[in-house]
Amino acid sequence: MAHDEGLVCFALSFDYGQRHRHELDAARRVAEVVGVEQHIVMPIDLRAFGGSALTADIEVPKGRGVGEMSAGIPVTYVPARNMIFLSFACAHAEVVGAREVIAGVNAVDYSGYPDCRPEFIEAFERAANLATKAGVEGRGVRVRTPLIRMTKAEIIRRGVGLGMDYALTHSCYDPDETGAACGACDSCAIRRRGFEDAGVPDPTRYAP
Amino acid sequence: MAHDEGLVCFALSFDYGQRHRHELDAARRVAEVVGVEQHIVMPIDLRAFGGSALTADIEVPKGRGVGEMSAGIPVTYVPARNMIFLSFACAHAEVVGAREVIAGVNAVDYSGYPDCRPEFIEAFERAANLATKAGVEGRGVRVRTPLIRMTKAEIIRRGVGLGMDYALTHSCYDPDETGAACGACDSCAIRRRGFEDAGVPDPTRYAP
Repeated sequence: MAHDEGLVCFALSFDYGQRHRHELDAARRVAEVVGVEQHIVMPIDLRAFGGSALTADIEVPKGRGVGEMSAGIPVTYVPARNMIFLSFACAHAEVVGAREVIAGVNAVDYSGYPDCRPEFIEAFERAANLATKAGVEGRGVRVRTPLIRMTKAEIIRRGVGLGMDYALTHSCYDPDETGAACGACDSCAIRRRGFEDAGVPDPTRYAP
Repeated sequence: MAHDEGLVCFALSFDYGQRHRHELDAARRVAEVVGVEQHIVMPIDLRAFGGSALTADIEVPKGRGVGEMSAGIPVTYVPARNMIFLSFACAHAEVVGAREVIAGVNAVDYSGYPDCRPEFIEAFERAANLATKAGVEGRGVRVRTPLIRMTKAEIIRRGVGLGMDYALTHSCYDPDETGAACGACDSCAIRRRGFEDAGVPDPTRYAP
């Protein structure tokens, strides 16, 4: 979407100790297909802290229907993760002279992650403009989250309209060693329902 | 100061690609002498972004008097550094169940760093409470900066009163390979003036 607006894009991904590398491979593929100016994969070790099913030996829930996910913050919540990611992104933006940080967080569709809510993003943007030279010297940094209020179905339709091949992308929390999606974790269930609701054939490769 | 309040302290330092390791050695010494519960040194690679005299091949200014430092943001400013550090600290606090994050930032004494100002800390605390499970579920996280409005002389006097041996500590931006302070960078000049103003003998080991 940023590329479609004509923006010069610098992509930033995080190798943060998540359960698998397949999402980073997917990020590299997408960055290459879109044609970003630069793609940095920043290593940060959130396993040193733990506290999440994504960064510690806590089991990822499987087989829950989309309707069963709504209560509370999921075990896949990673403490302060999006705040850490956005802070790095603001640092990077400042160094390359970018005026916008764009993050793909999504508040709807049963997510339950506090750091995906618009009120957090707004508070973070305010803090970022007080923390940085870009903010103090007037240019400022804008934190945009164009997907935040869209449903998964709307996101999928929008992507398809922009020519995105979703076979390149990855959502599963617990893929097999080939990168095939488990089809049973919350992220798979939400993604699959998104394709159904959008009326778009699901190109995801699921494990047998 | 936190330890003197009777708090159980978890220390967190960052190996962020700074110019030297001596400040990390000093942090380890101080953590050990104080007797913290745990000291994590988190590796993060801010050199991947650059943009500062502390993380890129930009020269550290030398030989400026304390009075010459007041204008603008110094080249030793590291983009968004304190926001990144505090975000990690909030993640760590949440995992260990700590209710306070305490940072040693200092707004006075000619610093010019936007991310050392009280207005940033307040905005950050607000964002952190919206981003985290701790914030959402009511316990909350408080971000304290007990040194923020103190002069260097006051900080030194306070530390001496608590029995801190400042020979264990490190401030210099550009020490020699033995860790001896250069005596000429802004940080050395401010530190030296602090000891003078406090009327405390300066135990810093300066390079010949």
